[in-house]
Amino acid sequence: MSGTLFGIGVGPGDPELISLKAHRILTSAKVVAYPAPDDGPSFARSIVAEYLSPKQTEIEIIVPMRVARFPAQDVYDKAADDIAEYLKSGEDVVVLCEGDPFFYGSFMYLFERLSDKFPVEIVPGISSLMASAAALQRPLAARNDVLTIIPGPLNEEAMLAQLEMCDAAAIIKVGRHFDRIRDTISKAGLLNNAGYLERVTLPNQQVIALGDVDAGKAPYFSIILIYKGAENWVQKQKVPTQISPDALGDAGE
Amino acid sequence: MSGTLFGIGVGPGDPELISLKAHRILTSAKVVAYPAPDDGPSFARSIVAEYLSPKQTEIEIIVPMRVARFPAQDVYDKAADDIAEYLKSGEDVVVLCEGDPFFYGSFMYLFERLSDKFPVEIVPGISSLMASAAALQRPLAARNDVLTIIPGPLNEEAMLAQLEMCDAAAIIKVGRHFDRIRDTISKAGLLNNAGYLERVTLPNQQVIALGDVDAGKAPYFSIILIYKGAENWVQKQKVPTQISPDALGDAGE
Repeated sequence: MSGTLFGIGVGPGDPELISLKAHRILTSAKVVAYPAPDDGPSFARSIVAEYLSPKQTEIEIIVPMRVARFPAQDVYDKAADDIAEYLKSGEDVVVLCEGDPFFYGSFMYLFERLSDKFPVEIVPGISSLMASAAALQRPLAARNDVLTIIPGPLNEEAMLAQLEMCDAAAIIKVGRHFDRIRDTISKAGLLNNAGYLERVTLPNQQVIALGDVDAGKAPYFSIILIYKGAENWVQKQKVPTQISPDALGDAGE
Repeated sequence: MSGTLFGIGVGPGDPELISLKAHRILTSAKVVAYPAPDDGPSFARSIVAEYLSPKQTEIEIIVPMRVARFPAQDVYDKAADDIAEYLKSGEDVVVLCEGDPFFYGSFMYLFERLSDKFPVEIVPGISSLMASAAALQRPLAARNDVLTIIPGPLNEEAMLAQLEMCDAAAIIKVGRHFDRIRDTISKAGLLNNAGYLERVTLPNQQVIALGDVDAGKAPYFSIILIYKGAENWVQKQKVPTQISPDALGDAGE
């Protein structure tokens, strides 16, 4: 009897935004694995640190940041081999996934290596996409809106075409592409329809109208939300619940 | 001191997929409100029924199903008035939201009526979008994929244009539009790239290759996931963890 590989979403950052199910599986696990950069602590682990016990075995999967976008496959080969040893011995392994495991996450690299040999269970998580709308106090999309998720690395032409086609958009993986993305949104005439968020649900969360953000590099955990129907709907401020009631724009009827 | 309006996501259906935070707020609330159809019980309430106490005051917001897509605004006017009375008296009111409050949810109709008068806190939830990918054991999107959320009521021409532009898509609000949507997906040449899911995370969950679904009306809580890069990636079956390992397709590298 082999163990089960669990991919559990740990949510956007606030430790309280993990599900009861993920919490149960995590706290009863003997082996816990998570990705970590080569220059700092694991964000996924930091989210659930208070729920971990010294008795648990931890597997840190060091992913070199320089190739983070298209990770060196040997890192995942090695991690999958390590995890497989535990699974073969009958031990379950819980992999911590920031946000949701299957929403642009790196969990799929382990999943594709292990799912043909071992039982796998995915526990969905609260995505930063939904947490960002909550922080902005603005619906992501409503009624029959088309909502498009656009990765920040897309070039200007492709991004403009996507923005043209949708009613609402979320631009993820902003990071070092911030300046170019803001220029593109400005060219699309949507600067006043865009809100910028970083580190949502964490104590140092930022919620700012895109036009008011200082130029430069944004952190990796940043996102831009755009809603075409409502101009000037986000005010520059850091306390989301103080956002002007005008923020809602035409979301309702 | 007025009370706070809480909009809390209760997740896709499994009571264990509510967050620790939503659970805490719900179980300490004295007043709980939720939408319900005029011909049956409230789905949102059924998700968290085991956490409710007879001591809590419940406000049922009856939304006539015939106008569910564009709800009669007087229903929300009345509900907002009822809720406002509690808030004015200093009592918090917790509104239960299926999935996530701001992902195509009806919570915005209350939010727009109350957020200029009372403090509001939104607690994001696990969306059926993420829960569907987990049930299908297939990433929603990866790397630099563009993922588009398409409401089922969109006409064929608009839907074809959206499917042309994206790398992955989720079609929500399928319901009575099922046959037309499947025809459209077939015209786009994507029938073998599409999985159909209904009632995800509930005991009667269905996960079926779209081509194998019996024609006819699908339940309101159904969704279609499309991934362009991988044909034949979903097999007809009801037990997600038995999906073929081929299901992963080209998700990884």
